[in-house]
Amino acid sequence: MSVPITPALKDELDIVIPTIRNLDFLEMWRPFFQPYHLIIVQDGDPTKTIKVPEGFDYELYNRNDINRILGPKASCISFKDSACRCFGYMVSKKKYIYTIDDDCFVAKDPTGKEINALEQHIKNLLCPSTPNFFNTLYDPYREGADFVRGYPFSMREGVKTAVSHGLWMNIPDYDAPTQMVKPLERNTRYVDAVMTIPKGTLFPMCGMNLAFDRELIGPAMYFGLMGDGQPIGRYDDMWAGWCIKVICDHLGLGVKTGLPYIWHSKASNPFVNLKKEYKGIFWQEEIIPFFQSVSLPKDCTSVQKCYLVLAEKVKEKLGPIDPYFTKLADAMVTWIEAWDQINSTSTGAKVANGTANGTANGK
Amino acid sequence: MSVPITPALKDELDIVIPTIRNLDFLEMWRPFFQPYHLIIVQDGDPTKTIKVPEGFDYELYNRNDINRILGPKASCISFKDSACRCFGYMVSKKKYIYTIDDDCFVAKDPTGKEINALEQHIKNLLCPSTPNFFNTLYDPYREGADFVRGYPFSMREGVKTAVSHGLWMNIPDYDAPTQMVKPLERNTRYVDAVMTIPKGTLFPMCGMNLAFDRELIGPAMYFGLMGDGQPIGRYDDMWAGWCIKVICDHLGLGVKTGLPYIWHSKASNPFVNLKKEYKGIFWQEEIIPFFQSVSLPKDCTSVQKCYLVLAEKVKEKLGPIDPYFTKLADAMVTWIEAWDQINSTSTGAKVANGTANGTANGK
Repeated sequence: MSVPITPALKDELDIVIPTIRNLDFLEMWRPFFQPYHLIIVQDGDPTKTIKVPEGFDYELYNRNDINRILGPKASCISFKDSACRCFGYMVSKKKYIYTIDDDCFVAKDPTGKEINALEQHIKNLLCPSTPNFFNTLYDPYREGADFVRGYPFSMREGVKTAVSHGLWMNIPDYDAPTQMVKPLERNTRYVDAVMTIPKGTLFPMCGMNLAFDRELIGPAMYFGLMGDGQPIGRYDDMWAGWCIKVICDHLGLGVKTGLPYIWHSKASNPFVNLKKEYKGIFWQEEIIPFFQSVSLPKDCTSVQKCYLVLAEKVKEKLGPIDPYFTKLADAMVTWIEAWDQINSTSTGAKVANGTANGTANGK
Repeated sequence: MSVPITPALKDELDIVIPTIRNLDFLEMWRPFFQPYHLIIVQDGDPTKTIKVPEGFDYELYNRNDINRILGPKASCISFKDSACRCFGYMVSKKKYIYTIDDDCFVAKDPTGKEINALEQHIKNLLCPSTPNFFNTLYDPYREGADFVRGYPFSMREGVKTAVSHGLWMNIPDYDAPTQMVKPLERNTRYVDAVMTIPKGTLFPMCGMNLAFDRELIGPAMYFGLMGDGQPIGRYDDMWAGWCIKVICDHLGLGVKTGLPYIWHSKASNPFVNLKKEYKGIFWQEEIIPFFQSVSLPKDCTSVQKCYLVLAEKVKEKLGPIDPYFTKLADAMVTWIEAWDQINSTSTGAKVANGTANGTANGK
């Protein structure tokens, strides 16, 4: 397989990888990822050395870096949970982000060809979404497809795509109870489709294989408070998914799901997962109706404004469920403050980068 | 290919076929359709004889039959347009309907196996829908799939499925302008998925390959006034699709789209189509927002009640666009009256059947 001479968005996209181990999985991705810059967010023990295969261009942040860069605001970044990845979104200077888990490998399409997941995500992000009316032949912009009879012409320009949610062959992304009931289930069905999730509809967003337009939706892509010291885990991407969907719907942006597939190699331990998830499993029965009914005021014209109003509403409506949500709502505000600090001034940006580069293993 | 010994829903499903020609296309469908009862609605010249291949169990209605059975109410049934098929829905005595166009043949799946479209529709109708939350692995009830992590447990029972919308290989269902621009485009992509169209989202429903639960949604499956004497054609199934979706959403019923595929053999003439469609193409720019925003009162607990309220709102909100919509709204009321007359009393039912059998070619 040959690396294309000018890969799409080479200088406009960062790949964010949260990890606690050596990144050998990158070897398989080398033909596709090597042209891009990586942002590695090292979770857990910061004294441990994470080995990155030769030839990749990367910066690496461990917990000490995060604490130094964000100071007291570092409290909004989760520890001992892959939710820490959102720190990478914050310090990126690029327009687009692709994030992938380190137990995800290159999948093959039904013809046996290796799937360049990143290339498909970029296609998804660069062509419009159609959240306002369902197209029965799936992505109308794809070659060989179009809008079907009866699709209103005024809606055929679509809207900008903010998020591309990719799927997984092999180990499906199930909750602990489903893992326990179906330990041997594997996803073997390749569904050759990309679709827009309609406006007003929530979906379970998985962070394993996800791309987004950081300029359009970045500040809402916060993965919440999970892991160490928190009563809940494995809801980081779900939380982000509910928030970004409500905000995309409000701002008229699109969210797609479907292709590309990656090969998810390893099922996490369902018993450990159950411990992390069980509060989420019943909390979500109240959280989902909240997100289904929440509406944002018209003057919320930026992602930041939307997110701060959402944080207020979370505190008000979900706070009564558990003190955790009050803490989460506060962390949402801290996240936006940190985002703006890192991103709004060139000084802030330099501070972040400078510090990070000082401890980075690579470059 | 062998016919299964007891095909699913053999005595609970009618196949409705509108036609103006001999039904040779049934030969290809014989292994799948022969166990079922057919209702053939002959359009156009009632003196013409429609040949039905040997061995099929059917009843056939031509325009004279429709006029005799419905009397003055026959005005709600379109003439010289395949919209006349909905007469077949009305006179059926079964719980389920499958309707197919006579230019649709058996498609093959990617392994080369002939697709039993009816069997897949029955599967779709008999298992629940999930309109309230999107499942990223598509139909969660299918073997090898399930609800993904983050899908609320309280929603996993789903809701009853009222409609199964199937797709087409080969000639896609495009409007006239798209046909003209892409005369050679063929649909070659087999997307191995069935999905629920989320609540609150409209879709372009095509009547070519469609199944539904007559008891749940039948009285809303009215294909409007098209063809002879009407200013519009080719919006019959679209109209029904908008109406049924709004009513299914209101009543908490599900609408699915995706598998099964049929092979659509023949593109209709785009110039003729443009003449039929052009008013629809601009009218739909006002019709869609109407259906997107219409809401039905809580006391509308039956399909009939919903439909009559919808007719009122059509008259009020769409009537100002063109006198056609006032006529259509009246026809919607007539349709419900005719439906109830044919279906509510055993006498009514007998009259309808008796008359039809008198002129039927078969049995």
